[in-house]
Amino acid sequence: MEIINMKEEIQNYFMQLQDAICEALEQTDGVAKFKEDAWQRDGGGGGRTRVIANGNIIEKGGVNFSAVHGKTPAKILEALSLPESNFFATGVSIVIHPSNPFVPIIHMNVRYFEMSNGTYWFGGGIDLTPHYVQDEDAKWFHQQLKNACDKHDLGYYPKFKTWADDYFYIPHRKETRGVGGIFFDHLKETDGISKKQLFDFVKEIGNSFAGIYTTLMQKNATKTFTDENKKWQFLRRGRYVEFNLVYDKGTKFGLDTDGRTESILMSLPPVANWDYNVEVKENSEEEKTLSKLVKGIAWI
Amino acid sequence: MEIINMKEEIQNYFMQLQDAICEALEQTDGVAKFKEDAWQRDGGGGGRTRVIANGNIIEKGGVNFSAVHGKTPAKILEALSLPESNFFATGVSIVIHPSNPFVPIIHMNVRYFEMSNGTYWFGGGIDLTPHYVQDEDAKWFHQQLKNACDKHDLGYYPKFKTWADDYFYIPHRKETRGVGGIFFDHLKETDGISKKQLFDFVKEIGNSFAGIYTTLMQKNATKTFTDENKKWQFLRRGRYVEFNLVYDKGTKFGLDTDGRTESILMSLPPVANWDYNVEVKENSEEEKTLSKLVKGIAWI
Repeated sequence: MEIINMKEEIQNYFMQLQDAICEALEQTDGVAKFKEDAWQRDGGGGGRTRVIANGNIIEKGGVNFSAVHGKTPAKILEALSLPESNFFATGVSIVIHPSNPFVPIIHMNVRYFEMSNGTYWFGGGIDLTPHYVQDEDAKWFHQQLKNACDKHDLGYYPKFKTWADDYFYIPHRKETRGVGGIFFDHLKETDGISKKQLFDFVKEIGNSFAGIYTTLMQKNATKTFTDENKKWQFLRRGRYVEFNLVYDKGTKFGLDTDGRTESILMSLPPVANWDYNVEVKENSEEEKTLSKLVKGIAWI
Repeated sequence: MEIINMKEEIQNYFMQLQDAICEALEQTDGVAKFKEDAWQRDGGGGGRTRVIANGNIIEKGGVNFSAVHGKTPAKILEALSLPESNFFATGVSIVIHPSNPFVPIIHMNVRYFEMSNGTYWFGGGIDLTPHYVQDEDAKWFHQQLKNACDKHDLGYYPKFKTWADDYFYIPHRKETRGVGGIFFDHLKETDGISKKQLFDFVKEIGNSFAGIYTTLMQKNATKTFTDENKKWQFLRRGRYVEFNLVYDKGTKFGLDTDGRTESILMSLPPVANWDYNVEVKENSEEEKTLSKLVKGIAWI
Protein backbone atom coordinates (compact mmCIF):
# COMPACT_ATOMS: atom_id res chain seq x y z
CA MET A 1 0.00 0.00 0.00
CA GLU A 2 2.82 2.34 0.88
CA ILE A 3 4.44 1.67 -2.49
CA ILE A 4 1.26 2.48 -4.39
CA ASN A 5 0.88 5.81 -2.62
CA MET A 6 4.47 6.68 -3.35
CA LYS A 7 3.96 5.86 -7.02
CA GLU A 8 1.08 8.30 -7.19
CA GLU A 9 3.01 10.88 -5.25
CA ILE A 10 5.94 10.59 -7.66
CA GLN A 11 3.71 10.78 -10.71
CA ASN A 12 1.92 13.82 -9.31
CA TYR A 13 5.21 15.51 -8.56
CA PHE A 14 6.43 14.93 -12.12
CA MET A 15 3.23 16.40 -13.55
CA GLN A 16 3.56 19.45 -11.36
CA LEU A 17 7.25 19.72 -12.28
CA GLN A 18 6.36 19.72 -15.97
CA ASP A 19 3.87 22.54 -15.34
CA ALA A 20 6.34 24.61 -13.35
CA ILE A 21 9.15 24.22 -15.89
CA CYS A 22 6.92 25.06 -18.85
CA GLU A 23 5.72 28.17 -17.08
CA ALA A 24 9.25 29.33 -16.22
CA LEU A 25 10.49 28.72 -19.76
CA GLU A 26 7.55 30.53 -21.34
CA GLN A 27 8.03 33.49 -19.03
CA THR A 28 11.75 33.76 -19.77
CA ASP A 29 11.31 33.24 -23.49
CA GLY A 30 8.61 35.90 -23.55
CA VAL A 31 7.14 34.91 -26.91
CA ALA A 32 6.62 31.19 -27.51
CA LYS A 33 4.03 29.06 -25.75
CA PHE A 34 4.03 25.32 -25.25
CA LYS A 35 1.56 23.22 -27.18
CA GLU A 36 0.38 20.04 -25.54
CA ASP A 37 -0.40 16.65 -27.04
CA ALA A 38 -1.96 14.32 -24.53
CA TRP A 39 -1.50 10.72 -25.64
CA GLN A 40 -2.48 7.27 -24.50
CA ARG A 41 -0.34 4.16 -24.64
CA ASP A 42 -1.97 1.03 -26.03
CA GLY A 43 -0.50 -1.16 -23.31
CA GLY A 44 -1.48 1.23 -20.50
CA GLY A 45 -0.91 4.82 -19.38
CA GLY A 46 0.09 7.78 -21.48
CA GLY A 47 1.67 11.18 -21.35
CA ARG A 48 1.62 14.88 -22.01
CA THR A 49 4.08 15.89 -24.71
CA ARG A 50 4.67 19.65 -24.68
CA VAL A 51 6.64 21.31 -27.40
CA ILE A 52 7.66 24.89 -27.94
CA ALA A 53 9.05 26.46 -31.11
CA ASN A 54 10.10 29.71 -32.76
CA GLY A 55 10.39 31.67 -29.53
CA ASN A 56 12.43 34.69 -28.71
CA ILE A 57 15.15 32.52 -27.15
CA ILE A 58 14.00 28.94 -27.68
CA GLU A 59 14.07 27.73 -31.27
CA LYS A 60 12.68 24.26 -30.50
CA GLY A 61 12.19 22.32 -27.32
CA GLY A 62 10.14 19.74 -25.52
CA VAL A 63 9.14 19.21 -21.90
CA ASN A 64 7.53 15.79 -21.74
CA PHE A 65 5.76 13.95 -18.98
CA SER A 66 4.73 10.32 -19.14
CA ALA A 67 3.38 7.67 -16.81
CA VAL A 68 3.06 4.29 -18.45
CA HIS A 69 2.38 0.80 -17.17
CA GLY A 70 1.68 -2.70 -18.40
CA LYS A 71 3.64 -5.85 -19.03
CA THR A 72 7.35 -5.30 -18.53
CA PRO A 73 9.02 -5.14 -21.99
CA ALA A 74 10.97 -8.29 -22.88
CA LYS A 75 14.14 -6.21 -23.32
CA ILE A 76 14.12 -5.20 -19.65
CA LEU A 77 13.28 -8.69 -18.41
CA GLU A 78 16.17 -10.12 -20.44
CA ALA A 79 18.62 -7.50 -19.24
CA LEU A 80 17.72 -8.16 -15.62
CA SER A 81 17.09 -11.92 -15.97
CA LEU A 82 13.61 -11.57 -14.51
CA PRO A 83 10.40 -13.53 -15.06
CA GLU A 84 7.30 -11.88 -16.53
CA SER A 85 5.95 -9.00 -14.49
CA ASN A 86 4.14 -5.69 -14.73
CA PHE A 87 5.91 -2.35 -14.65
CA PHE A 88 5.16 1.28 -13.97
CA ALA A 89 7.39 4.07 -15.27
CA THR A 90 6.99 7.80 -14.96
CA GLY A 91 9.26 10.72 -15.69
CA VAL A 92 9.92 14.13 -17.14
CA SER A 93 12.23 14.55 -20.12
CA ILE A 94 13.46 17.86 -21.49
CA VAL A 95 15.62 19.05 -24.36
CA ILE A 96 15.84 22.73 -25.33
CA HIS A 97 17.53 24.01 -28.49
CA PRO A 98 18.00 27.79 -28.28
CA SER A 99 18.37 29.98 -31.36
CA ASN A 100 21.31 32.09 -30.15
CA PRO A 101 24.50 30.01 -30.50
CA PHE A 102 25.79 31.41 -27.20
CA VAL A 103 22.88 29.93 -25.26
CA PRO A 104 23.65 26.27 -24.47
CA ILE A 105 21.44 23.30 -25.30
CA ILE A 106 20.16 21.69 -22.11
CA HIS A 107 18.76 18.28 -21.27
CA MET A 108 17.15 16.95 -18.13
CA ASN A 109 15.52 13.66 -17.37
CA VAL A 110 14.11 12.49 -14.05
CA ARG A 111 12.38 9.15 -13.87
CA TYR A 112 11.03 6.44 -11.64
CA PHE A 113 10.55 2.78 -12.53
CA GLU A 114 8.98 -0.03 -10.55
CA MET A 115 7.98 -3.61 -11.16
CA SER A 116 5.25 -5.77 -9.67
CA ASN A 117 7.90 -7.84 -7.87
CA GLY A 118 8.74 -4.77 -5.74
CA THR A 119 11.94 -3.77 -7.55
CA TYR A 120 12.13 -0.05 -8.17
CA TRP A 121 14.65 2.64 -8.94
CA PHE A 122 15.09 6.33 -9.67
CA GLY A 123 17.21 7.68 -12.47
CA GLY A 124 17.96 10.99 -14.08
CA GLY A 125 20.38 13.75 -14.79
CA ILE A 126 20.96 17.19 -16.22
CA ASP A 127 23.63 17.98 -18.76
CA LEU A 128 24.63 21.08 -20.67
CA THR A 129 25.76 21.26 -24.29
CA PRO A 130 27.14 24.70 -25.11
CA HIS A 131 27.83 25.32 -28.80
CA TYR A 132 30.66 27.47 -27.45
CA VAL A 133 32.03 26.38 -24.09
CA GLN A 134 32.21 29.34 -21.73
CA ASP A 135 34.20 28.37 -18.66
CA GLU A 136 32.30 30.73 -16.40
CA ASP A 137 28.94 29.21 -17.34
CA ALA A 138 30.21 25.62 -17.14
CA LYS A 139 31.62 26.25 -13.65
CA TRP A 140 28.46 27.95 -12.47
CA PHE A 141 26.32 25.15 -13.92
CA HIS A 142 28.33 22.46 -12.17
CA GLN A 143 28.27 24.45 -8.94
CA GLN A 144 24.45 24.53 -9.01
CA LEU A 145 24.34 20.78 -9.50
CA LYS A 146 26.90 20.23 -6.73
CA ASN A 147 24.89 22.44 -4.38
CA ALA A 148 21.76 20.41 -5.10
CA CYS A 149 23.59 17.10 -4.67
CA ASP A 150 25.44 18.15 -1.51
CA LYS A 151 22.18 18.78 0.36
CA HIS A 152 21.55 15.05 0.12
CA ASP A 153 24.85 13.21 -0.03
CA LEU A 154 28.37 14.60 -0.38
CA GLY A 155 29.24 11.54 -2.44
CA TYR A 156 26.59 12.20 -5.09
CA TYR A 157 28.15 15.02 -7.10
CA PRO A 158 31.58 13.43 -7.69
CA LYS A 159 29.99 10.08 -8.51
CA PHE A 160 27.21 11.41 -10.76
CA LYS A 161 29.48 13.93 -12.47
CA THR A 162 31.84 11.13 -13.55
CA TRP A 163 28.84 9.06 -14.62
CA ALA A 164 27.68 11.94 -16.84
CA ASP A 165 31.15 12.28 -18.39
CA ASP A 166 31.03 8.60 -19.28
CA TYR A 167 27.42 8.56 -20.42
CA PHE A 168 27.30 11.70 -22.57
CA TYR A 169 30.23 10.61 -24.70
CA ILE A 170 30.40 10.12 -28.48
CA PRO A 171 33.01 7.37 -29.03
CA HIS A 172 33.21 7.77 -32.82
CA ARG A 173 34.00 11.48 -32.38
CA LYS A 174 36.15 11.01 -29.27
CA GLU A 175 34.22 13.94 -27.80
CA THR A 176 31.86 14.44 -24.89
CA ARG A 177 28.47 15.77 -25.95
CA GLY A 178 29.01 18.96 -23.95
CA VAL A 179 30.34 19.95 -20.55
CA GLY A 180 28.43 17.15 -18.83
CA GLY A 181 26.60 17.58 -15.57
CA ILE A 182 25.21 14.74 -13.52
CA PHE A 183 23.76 11.36 -14.46
CA PHE A 184 22.44 8.65 -12.16
CA ASP A 185 20.49 5.45 -12.59
CA HIS A 186 19.21 2.48 -10.60
CA LEU A 187 19.13 4.50 -7.34
CA LYS A 188 17.58 2.19 -4.77
CA GLU A 189 17.12 2.38 -1.01
CA THR A 190 19.90 0.91 1.09
CA ASP A 191 20.49 0.50 4.84
CA GLY A 192 21.51 4.10 5.10
CA ILE A 193 19.01 5.76 2.78
CA SER A 194 15.25 5.47 2.38
CA LYS A 195 13.07 5.63 -0.68
CA LYS A 196 11.71 8.94 0.57
CA GLN A 197 15.23 10.36 0.76
CA LEU A 198 15.94 9.27 -2.81
CA PHE A 199 12.72 10.88 -3.98
CA ASP A 200 13.67 14.08 -2.14
CA PHE A 201 16.95 14.08 -4.02
CA VAL A 202 15.23 13.59 -7.37
CA LYS A 203 12.88 16.47 -6.50
CA GLU A 204 15.87 18.65 -5.64
CA ILE A 205 17.31 18.00 -9.11
CA GLY A 206 13.98 18.48 -10.85
CA ASN A 207 13.31 21.72 -8.99
CA SER A 208 16.76 23.10 -9.78
CA PHE A 209 16.23 22.94 -13.55
CA ALA A 210 14.13 26.05 -14.19
CA GLY A 211 16.41 28.34 -12.19
CA ILE A 212 19.53 26.99 -13.83
CA TYR A 213 18.35 27.21 -17.40
CA THR A 214 16.46 30.50 -17.24
CA THR A 215 19.61 32.07 -15.76
CA LEU A 216 21.70 30.78 -18.66
CA MET A 217 19.05 31.92 -21.14
CA GLN A 218 18.90 35.43 -19.74
CA LYS A 219 22.66 35.76 -19.46
CA ASN A 220 23.40 34.77 -23.05
CA ALA A 221 20.36 35.33 -25.25
CA THR A 222 21.19 38.92 -26.16
CA LYS A 223 24.79 38.25 -27.20
CA THR A 224 25.48 39.16 -30.81
CA PHE A 225 26.65 36.46 -33.17
CA THR A 226 27.96 36.02 -36.70
CA ASP A 227 27.02 33.70 -39.54
CA GLU A 228 30.11 31.70 -38.63
CA ASN A 229 28.80 31.25 -35.07
CA LYS A 230 25.49 30.08 -36.49
CA LYS A 231 27.19 27.62 -38.83
CA TRP A 232 29.15 26.20 -35.90
CA GLN A 233 25.95 25.87 -33.88
CA PHE A 234 24.39 23.77 -36.66
CA LEU A 235 27.45 21.52 -36.80
CA ARG A 236 27.37 21.04 -33.02
CA ARG A 237 23.70 20.17 -33.30
CA GLY A 238 24.72 17.50 -35.80
CA ARG A 239 26.81 15.93 -33.04
CA TYR A 240 23.81 16.14 -30.72
CA VAL A 241 21.81 14.14 -33.28
CA GLU A 242 24.62 11.59 -33.54
CA PHE A 243 24.69 11.07 -29.78
CA ASN A 244 20.93 10.80 -29.44
CA LEU A 245 20.34 8.45 -32.37
CA VAL A 246 23.42 6.25 -31.97
CA TYR A 247 24.07 6.08 -28.22
CA ASP A 248 21.32 7.48 -26.03
CA LYS A 249 19.78 4.56 -24.15
CA GLY A 250 16.44 6.28 -23.56
CA THR A 251 16.02 7.02 -27.26
CA LYS A 252 17.09 3.50 -28.27
CA PHE A 253 14.79 1.89 -25.73
CA GLY A 254 11.88 4.10 -26.74
CA LEU A 255 12.26 3.33 -30.43
CA ASP A 256 12.87 -0.39 -29.80
CA THR A 257 9.76 -0.77 -27.67
CA ASP A 258 7.49 1.09 -30.08
CA GLY A 259 7.30 4.21 -27.92
CA ARG A 260 5.68 7.42 -29.19
CA THR A 261 8.20 8.45 -31.85
CA GLU A 262 7.28 12.13 -31.96
CA SER A 263 7.71 12.43 -28.18
CA ILE A 264 11.03 10.59 -28.18
CA LEU A 265 12.49 12.51 -31.11
CA MET A 266 11.44 15.94 -29.86
CA SER A 267 15.09 15.97 -28.66
CA LEU A 268 16.34 16.47 -32.23
CA PRO A 269 17.24 20.01 -33.27
CA PRO A 270 15.18 22.08 -35.72
CA VAL A 271 18.18 22.39 -38.08
CA ALA A 272 21.46 20.47 -38.09
CA ASN A 273 24.39 20.48 -40.49
CA TRP A 274 27.05 18.02 -41.49
CA ASP A 275 30.19 19.01 -43.35
CA TYR A 276 32.99 16.66 -44.27
CA ASN A 277 36.03 16.76 -42.00
CA VAL A 278 35.43 20.16 -40.41
CA GLU A 279 38.63 21.86 -39.35
CA VAL A 280 38.76 24.69 -36.84
CA LYS A 281 41.16 27.61 -36.88
CA GLU A 282 44.04 27.66 -34.46
CA ASN A 283 43.30 29.60 -31.26
CA SER A 284 39.67 30.11 -32.33
CA GLU A 285 36.69 29.85 -29.99
CA GLU A 286 35.72 26.72 -31.91
CA GLU A 287 39.09 25.12 -31.18
CA LYS A 288 38.82 26.12 -27.52
CA THR A 289 35.40 24.48 -27.36
CA LEU A 290 36.68 21.22 -28.85
CA SER A 291 39.54 21.17 -26.32
CA LYS A 292 36.95 21.21 -23.51
CA LEU A 293 34.80 18.39 -24.88
CA VAL A 294 36.75 15.78 -22.94
CA LYS A 295 36.02 13.65 -19.91
CA GLY A 296 37.32 14.45 -16.47
CA ILE A 297 37.42 18.26 -16.42
CA ALA A 298 37.12 19.42 -12.81
CA TRP A 299 34.81 22.38 -13.42
CA ILE A 300 34.65 23.19 -9.72
CA MET B 1 46.35 -18.61 -55.55
CA GLU B 2 43.25 -18.18 -57.62
CA ILE B 3 41.54 -16.51 -54.66
CA ILE B 4 44.36 -14.02 -54.21
CA ASN B 5 44.24 -13.01 -57.86
CA MET B 6 40.49 -12.56 -57.71
CA LYS B 7 40.86 -10.38 -54.62
CA GLU B 8 43.20 -8.08 -56.48
CA GLU B 9 40.99 -8.10 -59.53
CA ILE B 10 37.97 -7.10 -57.42
CA GLN B 11 39.87 -4.38 -55.61
CA ASN B 12 41.17 -3.00 -58.89
CA TYR B 13 37.71 -3.02 -60.37
CA PHE B 14 36.32 -1.07 -57.39
CA MET B 15 39.07 1.54 -57.71
CA GLN B 16 38.35 1.95 -61.39
CA LEU B 17 34.62 2.11 -60.64
CA GLN B 18 35.21 4.92 -58.16
CA ASP B 19 37.17 6.83 -60.81
CA ALA B 20 34.51 6.33 -63.46
CA ILE B 21 31.63 7.38 -61.20
CA CYS B 22 33.42 10.47 -59.93
CA GLU B 23 34.16 11.52 -63.48
CA ALA B 24 30.56 11.04 -64.60
CA LEU B 25 29.15 12.93 -61.61
CA GLU B 26 31.58 15.82 -62.05
CA GLN B 27 30.74 16.07 -65.71
CA THR B 28 26.99 16.10 -65.11
CA ASP B 29 27.23 18.50 -62.20
CA GLY B 30 29.38 20.84 -64.27
CA VAL B 31 30.72 22.83 -61.34
CA ALA B 32 31.88 20.87 -58.30
CA LYS B 33 34.95 18.65 -58.20
CA PHE B 34 35.70 15.75 -55.88
CA LYS B 35 38.35 16.19 -53.23
CA GLU B 36 40.24 13.09 -52.21
CA ASP B 37 41.50 12.05 -48.80
CA ALA B 38 43.68 8.96 -49.01
CA TRP B 39 43.79 7.24 -45.61
CA GLN B 40 45.51 4.29 -44.02
CA ARG B 41 43.97 1.90 -41.54
CA ASP B 42 46.04 1.08 -38.46
CA GLY B 43 45.24 -2.64 -38.66
CA GLY B 44 45.97 -2.85 -42.42
CA GLY B 45 44.83 -1.33 -45.70
CA GLY B 46 43.12 1.99 -46.27
CA GLY B 47 40.96 3.89 -48.67
CA ARG B 48 40.25 6.86 -50.85
CA THR B 49 37.44 9.02 -49.52
CA ARG B 50 36.16 11.41 -52.18
CA VAL B 51 33.71 14.12 -51.32
CA ILE B 52 32.00 16.72 -53.43
CA ALA B 53 30.10 19.79 -52.23
CA ASN B 54 28.31 22.95 -53.33
CA GLY B 55 27.95 21.93 -56.93
CA ASN B 56 25.44 22.98 -59.52
CA ILE B 57 23.31 19.90 -58.83
CA ILE B 58 25.06 18.07 -55.99
CA GLU B 59 24.93 19.82 -52.63
CA LYS B 60 26.99 17.19 -50.80
CA GLY B 61 28.10 13.70 -51.66
CA GLY B 62 30.73 11.06 -51.24
CA VAL B 63 32.09 8.29 -53.44
CA ASN B 64 34.34 6.19 -51.24
CA PHE B 65 36.62 3.30 -52.00
CA SER B 66 38.29 1.16 -49.36
CA ALA B 67 40.29 -2.05 -49.19
CA VAL B 68 41.11 -3.08 -45.65
CA HIS B 69 42.53 -6.22 -44.10
CA GLY B 70 43.79 -7.58 -40.81
CA LYS B 71 42.39 -9.59 -37.94
CA THR B 72 38.69 -10.26 -38.38
CA PRO B 73 36.77 -7.98 -35.97
CA ALA B 74 35.39 -9.83 -32.92
CA LYS B 75 31.86 -8.71 -33.86
CA ILE B 76 31.98 -10.64 -37.14
CA LEU B 77 33.54 -13.72 -35.56
CA GLU B 78 30.82 -13.77 -32.90
CA ALA B 79 28.05 -13.30 -35.41
CA LEU B 80 29.32 -16.19 -37.52
CA SER B 81 30.61 -18.36 -34.64
CA LEU B 82 34.06 -18.52 -36.19
CA PRO B 83 37.53 -18.85 -34.65
CA GLU B 84 40.15 -16.11 -35.06
CA SER B 85 41.09 -15.39 -38.65
CA ASN B 86 42.21 -12.67 -41.01
CA PHE B 87 39.87 -10.80 -43.30
CA PHE B 88 39.97 -8.71 -46.44
CA ALA B 89 37.16 -6.32 -47.36
CA THR B 90 36.88 -3.96 -50.29
CA GLY B 91 34.07 -1.88 -51.67
CA VAL B 92 32.67 1.32 -53.06
CA SER B 93 30.09 3.30 -51.11
CA ILE B 94 28.15 6.29 -52.42
CA VAL B 95 25.57 8.74 -51.11
CA ILE B 96 24.61 11.87 -53.05
CA HIS B 97 22.46 14.68 -51.63
CA PRO B 98 21.31 16.99 -54.45
CA SER B 99 20.30 20.59 -53.84
CA ASN B 100 17.12 20.61 -55.94
CA PRO B 101 14.35 18.85 -53.97
CA PHE B 102 13.09 17.20 -57.15
CA VAL B 103 16.36 15.35 -57.67
CA PRO B 104 16.36 12.19 -55.54
CA ILE B 105 19.02 11.18 -53.03
CA ILE B 106 20.83 8.05 -54.19
CA HIS B 107 22.89 5.42 -52.44
CA MET B 108 24.98 2.58 -53.80
CA ASN B 109 27.24 0.12 -52.11
CA VAL B 110 29.11 -2.77 -53.70
CA ARG B 111 31.43 -4.83 -51.56
CA TYR B 112 33.46 -8.01 -51.28
CA PHE B 113 34.51 -9.73 -48.08
CA GLU B 114 36.74 -12.74 -47.56
CA MET B 115 38.35 -14.53 -44.65
CA SER B 116 41.54 -16.55 -44.38
CA ASN B 117 39.47 -19.73 -43.94
CA GLY B 118 38.25 -19.33 -47.53
CA THR B 119 34.78 -17.96 -46.72
CA TYR B 120 33.86 -15.05 -48.95
CA TRP B 121 30.82 -13.16 -50.13
CA PHE B 122 29.65 -10.24 -52.23
CA GLY B 123 27.09 -7.71 -51.10
CA GLY B 124 25.61 -4.46 -52.28
CA GLY B 125 22.66 -2.57 -53.57
CA ILE B 126 21.34 0.66 -55.00
CA ASP B 127 18.37 2.52 -53.57
CA LEU B 128 16.67 5.78 -54.40
CA THR B 129 15.23 8.29 -51.91
CA PRO B 130 13.18 10.94 -53.70
CA HIS B 131 12.09 13.86 -51.54
CA TYR B 132 9.02 13.82 -53.77
CA VAL B 133 8.16 10.43 -55.22
CA GLN B 134 7.62 10.70 -58.95
CA ASP B 135 6.09 7.48 -60.25
CA GLU B 136 7.71 7.80 -63.65
CA ASP B 137 11.20 8.07 -62.18
CA ALA B 138 10.64 5.29 -59.65
CA LYS B 139 9.41 2.96 -62.40
CA TRP B 140 12.28 3.85 -64.69
CA PHE B 141 14.79 3.39 -61.86
CA HIS B 142 13.45 -0.05 -60.99
CA GLN B 143 13.41 -1.00 -64.67
CA GLN B 144 17.12 -0.17 -64.97
CA LEU B 145 17.89 -2.35 -61.96
CA LYS B 146 15.73 -5.17 -63.28
CA ASN B 147 17.46 -4.99 -66.66
CA ALA B 148 20.86 -5.26 -64.94
CA CYS B 149 19.70 -8.14 -62.74
CA ASP B 150 17.96 -10.04 -65.53
CA LYS B 151 21.18 -10.32 -67.54
CA HIS B 152 22.49 -12.57 -64.76
CA ASP B 153 19.58 -14.32 -63.09
CA LEU B 154 15.86 -13.79 -63.56
CA GLY B 155 15.41 -14.53 -59.87
CA TYR B 156 17.66 -11.70 -58.72
CA TYR B 157 15.45 -8.65 -59.20
CA PRO B 158 12.33 -9.94 -57.38
CA LYS B 159 14.46 -11.31 -54.54
CA PHE B 160 16.74 -8.29 -54.16
CA LYS B 161 13.90 -5.78 -54.59
CA THR B 162 12.04 -7.36 -51.65
CA TRP B 163 15.27 -7.42 -49.66
CA ALA B 164 15.71 -3.67 -50.27
CA ASP B 165 12.10 -2.99 -49.17
CA ASP B 166 12.85 -4.81 -45.92
CA TYR B 167 16.30 -3.34 -45.39
CA PHE B 168 15.65 0.33 -46.16
CA TYR B 169 12.83 0.57 -43.67
CA ILE B 170 12.43 2.90 -40.68
CA PRO B 171 10.35 0.96 -38.12
CA HIS B 172 9.78 3.90 -35.77
CA ARG B 173 8.34 5.94 -38.66
CA LYS B 174 6.60 2.99 -40.31
CA GLU B 175 8.04 4.29 -43.58
CA THR B 176 10.49 2.99 -46.14
CA ARG B 177 13.48 5.28 -46.64
CA GLY B 178 12.54 5.90 -50.24
CA VAL B 179 11.31 3.88 -53.21
CA GLY B 180 13.82 1.12 -52.55
CA GLY B 181 15.81 -0.57 -55.29
CA ILE B 182 17.87 -3.71 -54.79
CA PHE B 183 19.83 -5.04 -51.82
CA PHE B 184 21.82 -8.27 -51.59
CA ASP B 185 24.29 -9.75 -49.15
CA HIS B 186 26.27 -12.94 -48.51
CA LEU B 187 26.22 -13.88 -52.22
CA LYS B 188 28.37 -17.01 -52.49
CA GLU B 189 29.10 -19.46 -55.26
CA THR B 190 26.81 -22.47 -55.45
CA ASP B 191 26.59 -25.52 -57.72
CA GLY B 192 24.94 -23.44 -60.37
CA ILE B 193 26.91 -20.23 -60.15
CA SER B 194 30.63 -19.47 -59.99
CA LYS B 195 32.48 -16.75 -58.14
CA LYS B 196 33.28 -15.16 -61.47
CA GLN B 197 29.60 -15.01 -62.36
CA LEU B 198 28.82 -13.33 -59.04
CA PHE B 199 31.58 -10.81 -59.65
CA ASP B 200 30.19 -10.14 -63.13
CA PHE B 201 26.83 -9.40 -61.56
CA VAL B 202 28.34 -7.01 -59.01
CA LYS B 203 30.18 -5.27 -61.87
CA GLU B 204 26.91 -4.97 -63.79
CA ILE B 205 25.34 -3.20 -60.81
CA GLY B 206 28.36 -0.99 -60.19
CA ASN B 207 28.57 -0.04 -63.85
CA SER B 208 24.88 0.82 -64.01
CA PHE B 209 25.14 3.52 -61.33
CA ALA B 210 26.55 6.45 -63.28
CA GLY B 211 24.05 6.16 -66.13
CA ILE B 212 21.10 5.83 -63.78
CA TYR B 213 21.94 8.75 -61.56
CA THR B 214 23.20 11.19 -64.16
CA THR B 215 19.95 10.61 -66.06
CA LEU B 216 17.89 11.43 -62.97
CA MET B 217 20.07 14.47 -62.26
CA GLN B 218 19.68 15.86 -65.77
CA LYS B 219 15.96 15.17 -65.90
CA ASN B 220 15.13 16.95 -62.64
CA ALA B 221 17.83 19.46 -61.76
CA THR B 222 16.28 22.37 -63.61
CA LYS B 223 12.80 22.01 -62.12
CA THR B 224 11.65 25.06 -60.22
CA PHE B 225 10.83 24.70 -56.56
CA THR B 226 9.37 26.70 -53.69
CA ASP B 227 10.49 27.36 -50.11
CA GLU B 228 7.91 24.78 -49.08
CA ASN B 229 9.55 22.16 -51.32
CA LYS B 230 12.91 23.01 -49.77
CA LYS B 231 11.51 22.71 -46.25
CA TRP B 232 10.09 19.29 -47.10
CA GLN B 233 13.44 18.21 -48.54
CA PHE B 234 15.13 19.07 -45.24
CA LEU B 235 12.55 17.08 -43.28
CA ARG B 236 13.01 14.07 -45.56
CA ARG B 237 16.76 14.37 -45.06
CA GLY B 238 16.06 14.17 -41.32
CA ARG B 239 14.51 10.76 -41.95
CA TYR B 240 17.59 9.79 -43.94
CA VAL B 241 19.72 10.66 -40.91
CA GLU B 242 17.43 8.60 -38.68
CA PHE B 243 17.77 5.55 -40.91
CA ASN B 244 21.51 5.81 -41.25
CA LEU B 245 22.29 6.44 -37.58
CA VAL B 246 19.71 4.10 -36.05
CA TYR B 247 19.41 1.18 -38.48
CA ASP B 248 22.03 1.06 -41.22
CA LYS B 249 24.24 -1.96 -40.57
CA GLY B 250 27.23 -0.60 -42.46
CA THR B 251 27.20 2.62 -40.46
CA LYS B 252 26.73 0.77 -37.17
CA PHE B 253 29.49 -1.70 -37.96
CA GLY B 254 31.86 1.05 -39.06
CA LEU B 255 31.33 3.12 -35.91
CA ASP B 256 31.47 0.04 -33.65
CA THR B 257 34.75 -1.17 -35.09
CA ASP B 258 36.44 2.22 -34.93
CA GLY B 259 36.24 2.83 -38.68
CA ARG B 260 37.11 6.19 -40.22
CA THR B 261 34.23 8.32 -38.92
CA GLU B 262 34.44 11.05 -41.55
CA SER B 263 34.27 8.48 -44.35
CA ILE B 264 31.37 6.61 -42.75
CA LEU B 265 29.34 9.73 -41.98
CA MET B 266 29.81 11.36 -45.39
CA SER B 267 26.35 9.84 -45.95
CA LEU B 268 24.73 12.48 -43.73
CA PRO B 269 23.11 15.45 -45.47
CA PRO B 270 24.55 18.98 -45.41
CA VAL B 271 21.37 20.32 -43.76
CA ALA B 272 18.52 18.42 -42.11
CA ASN B 273 15.45 19.61 -40.22
CA TRP B 274 13.22 18.16 -37.55
CA ASP B 275 9.81 19.59 -36.70
CA TYR B 276 7.44 18.12 -34.18
CA ASN B 277 4.63 16.02 -35.58
CA VAL B 278 4.71 17.27 -39.16
CA GLU B 279 1.35 17.08 -40.87
CA VAL B 280 0.87 17.16 -44.60
CA LYS B 281 -2.02 18.71 -46.48
CA GLU B 282 -4.65 16.49 -47.97
CA ASN B 283 -4.04 15.65 -51.63
CA SER B 284 -0.67 17.42 -51.56
CA GLU B 285 2.48 16.13 -53.24
CA GLU B 286 3.85 15.56 -49.74
CA GLU B 287 0.92 13.33 -48.83
CA LYS B 288 1.28 11.46 -52.11
CA THR B 289 4.95 10.87 -51.33
CA LEU B 290 4.19 9.49 -47.86
CA SER B 291 1.60 7.13 -49.35
CA LYS B 292 4.35 5.61 -51.54
CA LEU B 293 6.88 5.09 -48.75
CA VAL B 294 5.62 1.59 -48.06
CA LYS B 295 6.97 -1.87 -48.70
CA GLY B 296 5.82 -4.03 -51.56
CA ILE B 297 5.02 -1.53 -54.31
CA ALA B 298 5.37 -3.29 -57.68
CA TRP B 299 7.02 -0.43 -59.56
CA ILE B 300 7.34 -2.49 -62.71
